[in-house]
This record gives sequence, structure tokens and C-alpha cells, in this order.
Amino acid sequence: MRDVAVIGAGLTRFGERWEHGLRELIAEAGMQAITDANIESKDIQIVYGSTMASGRFVGQEHLAALLADQMGFKNVPAVRVENACASGGSAVRQGYIAVASGMYDIAVIGGVEKMTDVTTAEATTALGGAGDQEWELAQGITFPGLYALIANRHMHEYKTTEEQMASVAVKNHRNAIKNKYAQFHKEITIDEVLKSKVVSDPLKVLDCSPISDGAAVIVLAPLESAKKYNDTPIKIAASSQASDTLALADRDSLTELKATRLAGRDAYAKARLKPTDINVAEVHDCFTIAEILAMEDLDFYGKGKAAKAVEEGETEINGKISINTSGGLKGCGHPVGATGVKQIAEIVTQLRGEAGERQVSGAEVGLTHNVGGSGATAVVHILNRVN
Amino acid sequence: MRDVAVIGAGLTRFGERWEHGLRELIAEAGMQAITDANIESKDIQIVYGSTMASGRFVGQEHLAALLADQMGFKNVPAVRVENACASGGSAVRQGYIAVASGMYDIAVIGGVEKMTDVTTAEATTALGGAGDQEWELAQGITFPGLYALIANRHMHEYKTTEEQMASVAVKNHRNAIKNKYAQFHKEITIDEVLKSKVVSDPLKVLDCSPISDGAAVIVLAPLESAKKYNDTPIKIAASSQASDTLALADRDSLTELKATRLAGRDAYAKARLKPTDINVAEVHDCFTIAEILAMEDLDFYGKGKAAKAVEEGETEINGKISINTSGGLKGCGHPVGATGVKQIAEIVTQLRGEAGERQVSGAEVGLTHNVGGSGATAVVHILNRVN
Repeated sequence: MRDVAVIGAGLTRFGERWEHGLRELIAEAGMQAITDANIESKDIQIVYGSTMASGRFVGQEHLAALLADQMGFKNVPAVRVENACASGGSAVRQGYIAVASGMYDIAVIGGVEKMTDVTTAEATTALGGAGDQEWELAQGITFPGLYALIANRHMHEYKTTEEQMASVAVKNHRNAIKNKYAQFHKEITIDEVLKSKVVSDPLKVLDCSPISDGAAVIVLAPLESAKKYNDTPIKIAASSQASDTLALADRDSLTELKATRLAGRDAYAKARLKPTDINVAEVHDCFTIAEILAMEDLDFYGKGKAAKAVEEGETEINGKISINTSGGLKGCGHPVGATGVKQIAEIVTQLRGEAGERQVSGAEVGLTHNVGGSGATAVVHILNRVN
Repeated sequence: MRDVAVIGAGLTRFGERWEHGLRELIAEAGMQAITDANIESKDIQIVYGSTMASGRFVGQEHLAALLADQMGFKNVPAVRVENACASGGSAVRQGYIAVASGMYDIAVIGGVEKMTDVTTAEATTALGGAGDQEWELAQGITFPGLYALIANRHMHEYKTTEEQMASVAVKNHRNAIKNKYAQFHKEITIDEVLKSKVVSDPLKVLDCSPISDGAAVIVLAPLESAKKYNDTPIKIAASSQASDTLALADRDSLTELKATRLAGRDAYAKARLKPTDINVAEVHDCFTIAEILAMEDLDFYGKGKAAKAVEEGETEINGKISINTSGGLKGCGHPVGATGVKQIAEIVTQLRGEAGERQVSGAEVGLTHNVGGSGATAVVHILNRVN
């Protein structure tokens, strides 16, 4: 196995992109990534596409073939990866394996989701397919309900408060203002979060990531040749993934995502790094409670300690550890198939020192954490600057 | 890269499995495969799941996590691959890369589709997502229509007849009778095919593969250690894949699937074999014309020569080349996400000499060919017996 680097990244603005379909979103992010990597379409050897539910959102399966076709990557192998909201991270990992194996030199990974062509009820049902259709969705529980169960139990066990959860949303909206690709450019207050409409108690609408359209594309190459393409290639120091039971009720604990714990520890071991070595992280805040869980399960904080740390500003940009500088899923938006790829793009931007107003000073090591469903899949990548 | 072998395979009966859902189908095929490979659940290191449209058929995405959960493969990475009707072959190929790379030793690939819980109209629409949703399906053309365009052009260019196409269905039904896992156990005649209801001229209902439920699971291991598990491991001599434009109208030719041509030639080169070295092949006969195209594009026959060869019996079991001994998609059934995995299982059975009444005498080398959509994806594997 050889080392792999990210040599290019591209994003669309996330949000309600009424005027654009899958093809336009892919092209917008894809052309940026190709340009950023200083390569041409003919250099691409394999393509991975990620989307969670394009079949249900817009009637289109076979997404990777569409991506290769739209981008003019003539006749290369194209593979769609779907792992619910962790589709993007999982696709990046398959691209990583393809390049690390020596079988392919240049891989493109493109994530996209077009969610706003259906009603919110239809989108919620489609997203329910990330959980256990027979034992959860068909019984009437959707994702806000599943994460509300987690939140309630976390509040019970660790005295986590609604204000602390709200502080995650406030921080991530504040970061999103500094990100031109983000869906929301609007500061919110703790009070606004608390007074927003209850979706599933204790989660209010401002505790939930939005329904979004958007795409993200990255380009991978062997580290040994990465400098040919790019002055600042970013090395993938670890790529790890774990799974857990599909249904929340089958887990040992409601307040820990075991898949995150396992993937995180595997990643630290592979990268020979400790949680305290991470300067900047994009973690999976589909709901505010999910960011708190992630901070704990990734060993940034002990169990029950993360909520207070957010409240006290330790995870702000240039805090003790900068979390979700892009605005996260909450502020930047969550086109599900694109999110895991976007997380990599944000860390690459940070490690290159190109994040502008939201730049973390001296960021050398970053982490991404992408979750599928209520934790049945977790994918963790650690990236570092090559000096 | 190291050599990879198939050490286990399992299948469910294909057909209308009203009494079984995704979970039961996966368990039925999965337990067989694990038993066949002489391994235990704890030996599994990574899982690939393939399904084309489980989201639209039964509301369940995140299929690989369900598979790992249902089979008790605790916490291993689980990845769903979707490439329309080539999902199975594409998932096998990702499993192959994972093992060949040296990163994983034992990989399980499970394909499943549960198609009979929706109406035929809903199934046809869902399957339309394999083509170009915006430029084909939304304009009113579904898959029988796309393949009818191909058939008409093939008839025009090469004087292929409806009787010749019908002879593909007749052969594949005859083979299916000898396969206990097949959906159809009923001989049909050329006359019955020709008189069956027209779906999209010139394709009649008996030219079309059916809507099916079913699952197929295989187990991969490094060839060097495969004999530990199994006396007759089957080597994967080549794993190749190519893509083409998503929409049929964008292609150079209507009568050749370029992706098949490219994947096939790449596979022959990798395996250092010629088309005449193949004893037995499972090719993608979603419609009868598709088997004829495959025989030509895989270089078994020159362009325009395959239809006559079928008619004259050259592709019967123990003919010049035995094609679709399982009954193919037409006779065995076509649960789309399972098909590409089932093809591998059939070739493994043949190369082990365990195919009973449908055994190809002295079969040493086999090929599988799995197509997504109208040819936007093609995956070809060549397998051989290890002596």
C-alpha cells in the first residue's frame, strides 16, 4: 500500500438550488476540482460517485456513470457508493483504497444530492431509509425522533442542557457566515434556537441540519507524485471505517456511537497520532447532539464533557480544537451524498492555509468524521500537511 | 497486488418471494456462502452490499450496514455499491480490489433485490433510473423501449431475426430447468415467444427478463491462503470495468456496447487469455437482444454472427461455448442488485464441477459479464480453476 494525497477539491454553494439539477451541480464542483488539481479529464482513471437517495429524490440511480459522462471522463470505471449520510466519506475511502493499492493513479470522488425537488415529508421519508426501514421507519420514527432519543438519554446521563446543544448551532452558523459555499449566512442566538419550533423534543428546528442541494468533488493521487500536480498536496494519513447495528434499539448504548469510537481509534493508530494532535475537524452534526457525541466518541473530550466545552467556546475557530469551521452540516448545509466529500474539501482548504476569514492558524493536522443513519456507519479520515 | 480467489458462494431461489424481505433473503444466501467457505462470521473483515433501488422498492437505503448487521459481521466496514443492473459485478470488483490490495483478507459481497413489493409500473419506473432520467425516462422511454431501439437497429444492420432472438429465451429457459435456484422451471418454444404479448416492438414479454426477488453472496480471500478454507478455490484471473454515456442517444453505435467491448478486452489482456479460451460464460441477457450483443462485444463471435450461432445451438450447454448455464437473467431471474454476484456464483459452481445436470464438461475457464442500464456500465470477470 502506498501513501495517497488529495490534489484537488471543488464545491458548489450548498442550499436551495432550484435552478440546477444533478448534472449542473456535478459540473460546477467537478470543473473546480479538476482545475484545482491541474489535471485534464483524460488523466482520470477511476471515478467514485456518492449520493444517498437520488433514486427517490430525482428518479436517477446509476449516479457514477452520470458523473463520468457529464464530466467527460470517457469510459473509465465509475462506481456509486451509498452508505446513507456517510456515502461521501465511504466513497472517498474506496477511492483511497483504489489509489493506495497501486491499481489506479488518479481517482475522482464526487458527491451530490438534489433534495429540494420533493416535499419535506417525502425527503424525511427518503432519509428514513438510512435507518432500519422495518423496525424504525415503518413504526413511525424518523431521524429527528431517533436523535431526540439519543439527546434525551444524553441529557439524563450527563446533565447536558438544551442551551448547550443550541450553542453548537450558534457556533456553526457563525462559522458558516465566513464560508461562501454555505447554505446559511445568518447569525443565530441561543434564545432563537430554544424558541424555534419543536421537531422532536428536545430537538428544535434550529438543532437540525437543513435539506440541501449541492455537490463536492475531490481528486486523489499517489503522494509520491502529488507534487507534480499541486504545490500543497494534503496527505491522507488514515482512512478508517466501522459499522454498527442498523437499528438504534439494538445498540449497547444510546449515548455513544460505537462505529465512531472504533473508526476514530483505528484512524489514530494508523496515523500514529493522538486526538490532541488534531487542529481542525469536520464532524457529523446532522443534529446538534450529534456534534457533542462526535466530540466525545472521537476522544476529543471525555464522555459527558463535550457539551460544556462547546458552551465555553473551546471548539470555536482557533479555540482548543476548531470544530466544523465550514459551518458543519448545520450551517453549511447537508446535501447528504455530498457531505462526506465536502468535509475533506474543507480540511484540505484549512491545511493549505486558504480558508480566509475562517482559517485556523497553523493548522497542520485535520480530521473528518462522517456518519450514516443513527450510527450504523462511521468513516474517519485524518489528513496532514506535507512539509 | 496479490491474486484473489472465490472461496464460497450462496444463493436464494430467485422468483416471487412474497414471504421474504431483504433480511431473510440476505440471511438465506449469506449463511450458505459462509458455510461453503468454511469460515465464521468473525473471520469477515469487510462487506460489500449491492442493490440497485432498494430505496424505491422497499424504502431501505444503507443496505451494506443492514447486511453486516443481519449476518452478525460485527462492526466491520460495510459499503453499498450501486451501478444499476451492474451493481453486483461492481461490488464484486470493489471486494476484489480490497483483497488484492492487501488491506483486507476476507471480504463478503452480497447482492440483493426485493422487487415484487411494488407494482410492475412502479418497478419499471424505478428501473428507469438506470438510464438517463432527464433525457430518457422523463421523455417517456423505459428499458424495454431502449433495448427495442437496439434490437431494431441490429435487425436492420445484420438481418437478425425475431426467431433468433427468441432462441436465446428458449435456450435460457431450458437451462433454468436444471437450476434449482431459477425463477422459471418451464420450457418455452420459439413460437410461444413470438406469440407472447409485445412489450416494445420487436421485444415480446418472453424476450424480457422478469421482475424478481433474490440474493447472492460470495466470499473472497487471497489465493495464497484460499486452500486453507476450501479444496477448490476459484481464482479471479481478471476484473475489469468500463463506462459509457448514460443516454443511448449519445453513443457512437446502437449495436455495440462500447463499455462491454472495453471491459472484455481489458479482462482478456489481464488474464492473458483469448475469447476462445472461455468454456462457460454468464452474460447479461436482460433482453434477448442483449445476449446477442454480449456474445459479439465480448469477441465470442464477430459482429452480426452471434444470432445465427444461438439459433444453431452453439451456445447450448456443452456447445462451442456454453452461455448462461444458470438460465441467465431471462430464465434464472433478475433481482437486479443480486444478478452480478449470482453470475460469479454460477461460474464458481461450474468450475468446481458441481453444476449437476447443467455441468459443462471439463470447464476450466469462465467469464461473467454484467451490464448497467443500456450499457453505461459493464463489468467483466474471468475466473479459472486452480489445479
